Amino acid sequence: MRAAFYEGAGTFRIGTAPTPKPAADEALLKVRRVGICGTDLHIFQGHLDHRIPRGGIIGHETLAEIAEAPGGAGFGPGERVVVEPLWTCGACRACRMGAAYLCYRLRVRGVEEPGGMQEYWNVPTARLLRVPSSLGDDGAAMIEPLAVATHDVRRAEVKAGDAVLIFGGGPIGALIAMVCRHRGARVVVSEVNPFRVKMLTGLGIDVVGPDRDLKAFVQEWTSGDGADIVFEVTGNPAAVSAMTDLVRVWGTISMVAIHGAPPVNLYQFFARELTMHGSRLYSREDWEEAIRLAAAGAVSLAPLVSRRIPLESLQQGMEETLRGGPVMKVLIDLNA
Amino acid sequence: MRAAFYEGAGTFRIGTAPTPKPAADEALLKVRRVGICGTDLHIFQGHLDHRIPRGGIIGHETLAEIAEAPGGAGFGPGERVVVEPLWTCGACRACRMGAAYLCYRLRVRGVEEPGGMQEYWNVPTARLLRVPSSLGDDGAAMIEPLAVATHDVRRAEVKAGDAVLIFGGGPIGALIAMVCRHRGARVVVSEVNPFRVKMLTGLGIDVVGPDRDLKAFVQEWTSGDGADIVFEVTGNPAAVSAMTDLVRVWGTISMVAIHGAPPVNLYQFFARELTMHGSRLYSREDWEEAIRLAAAGAVSLAPLVSRRIPLESLQQGMEETLRGGPVMKVLIDLNA
Repeated sequence: MRAAFYEGAGTFRIGTAPTPKPAADEALLKVRRVGICGTDLHIFQGHLDHRIPRGGIIGHETLAEIAEAPGGAGFGPGERVVVEPLWTCGACRACRMGAAYLCYRLRVRGVEEPGGMQEYWNVPTARLLRVPSSLGDDGAAMIEPLAVATHDVRRAEVKAGDAVLIFGGGPIGALIAMVCRHRGARVVVSEVNPFRVKMLTGLGIDVVGPDRDLKAFVQEWTSGDGADIVFEVTGNPAAVSAMTDLVRVWGTISMVAIHGAPPVNLYQFFARELTMHGSRLYSREDWEEAIRLAAAGAVSLAPLVSRRIPLESLQQGMEETLRGGPVMKVLIDLNA
Repeated sequence: MRAAFYEGAGTFRIGTAPTPKPAADEALLKVRRVGICGTDLHIFQGHLDHRIPRGGIIGHETLAEIAEAPGGAGFGPGERVVVEPLWTCGACRACRMGAAYLCYRLRVRGVEEPGGMQEYWNVPTARLLRVPSSLGDDGAAMIEPLAVATHDVRRAEVKAGDAVLIFGGGPIGALIAMVCRHRGARVVVSEVNPFRVKMLTGLGIDVVGPDRDLKAFVQEWTSGDGADIVFEVTGNPAAVSAMTDLVRVWGTISMVAIHGAPPVNLYQFFARELTMHGSRLYSREDWEEAIRLAAAGAVSLAPLVSRRIPLESLQQGMEETLRGGPVMKVLIDLNA
């Protein structure tokens, strides 16, 4: 079978490997779609070399069909599934307190463990979720990032009527916007990439582009109070610098993006009793909510796919995504 | 009557002024004790010149007795009271949402409005709280900082059994430690000043001094998990740098100290889904809890007073406190 192997910063090799043999608790999946995610771009740049082995197989945003499943697991051949790509120990403090996705010994399929950028893939049946028939393959491949968004929105406790400001209108920012809107919140996205501004606007999402003064806009939008909730999804220190001035007294900042240690205006935390929390990955309930919202058509998934490419074009796909420009979600189509 | 007037950075002038005349809703207080607080030190250094007028009277940690009170207010001459030193508008978003102490138009007695460093002081009776007879004058003068601590602990939702780490063993850090311990938490204070280390240790509080590796200590103390809750009460960027490594998955950082915009390890917020909130001032319920705890002897107040000085020594008291050294809480004794 074909697979993509990570050979170190900047290099993927497309090659072949024997079709894997599933263990007793595993299904053998035939992979259909794999999304390229921000984490994959970090891997491509060599930032996660401490986590991923040379020759490792990436890909954790996946849609697959069952090739073989153990009897009694409830999955039949040809059924479409998505994969919760986590291995958790079940014994550490995080697992015991209900934060298994923050497991001290967490292993992610597509990082430490083989991911979906191969034709066939072994995954424990306990980590599979069925895809509703109303969803096309492209939309179904967006369930993983949608589960990130449902997690972020749940953790931030977004309520109907809240004024929500989202820094960053990439796939995750866009999905957070849609989930917040579905909850009845008022949502504005701050985004600078004209392609993304146009795509979001086309999906009915309000965007503040680089031509407008964001602070003045938020002041006017919230009658001088500031946003109830701010999501930081850019990873850009400029957003960290701006965010603390745009959230109201007792407001919440959700830190979804990955940063190092940029300056943070702690005076505003004190003066206005702000709250900031980190938000990462998902638990099973976030997947279930994602599938419910997707099945109900409450969010637009397939329109976020800006390009579908074959596995052989992975490296160019990564390079293009990194360059920015006219790109939102790029999917690898394993059938192409 | 005698009073201390702020005449600009580094200078207090002791002088006289006419005894104020109370308005219909005010009592005339005869001030007994005023504590020197971190905010007062900021004023002394000129940091709050945008808030305090030249010739302003500082002091918001006070104990007084009633000289005159309007009939029907429920206060009789000679009764001892403490003062919630806030003026709030009652109309802004913060006031309407129950965060009146974060009022957009907040005025603090002892900053924007005249404070307690004068022999007689007009205060609306609605801002007075009676002092239990079991408390001496020095202890009663500590109720205001204790209300800060009860607020901080309430907001951080400290529970019995929690491992609580407090950066900074000054008066507020010490009071937070006592309130946490009263709630059944396990408490450790990180402090470098030997005088404070000795005082806290004498009060039965566990202290990690500068001779020990704090990270190794916390690892061992919490079996590798990290503290449940960290209070940052030093204002030192080194504590901000350390704090994110010492709190567990899903743990809480309470930002009590005043900072500018130091570097903050946001990667840890993401990776461990940490939460940080600012904590400032108090609401009425925090005062009521402070008085309950003080009356019950659940906290040690008077032992934190390292020195009592007359109003005429205010300037030296400020200078000594700023230099650090063998100092905890310094009280101005208006009767001396």
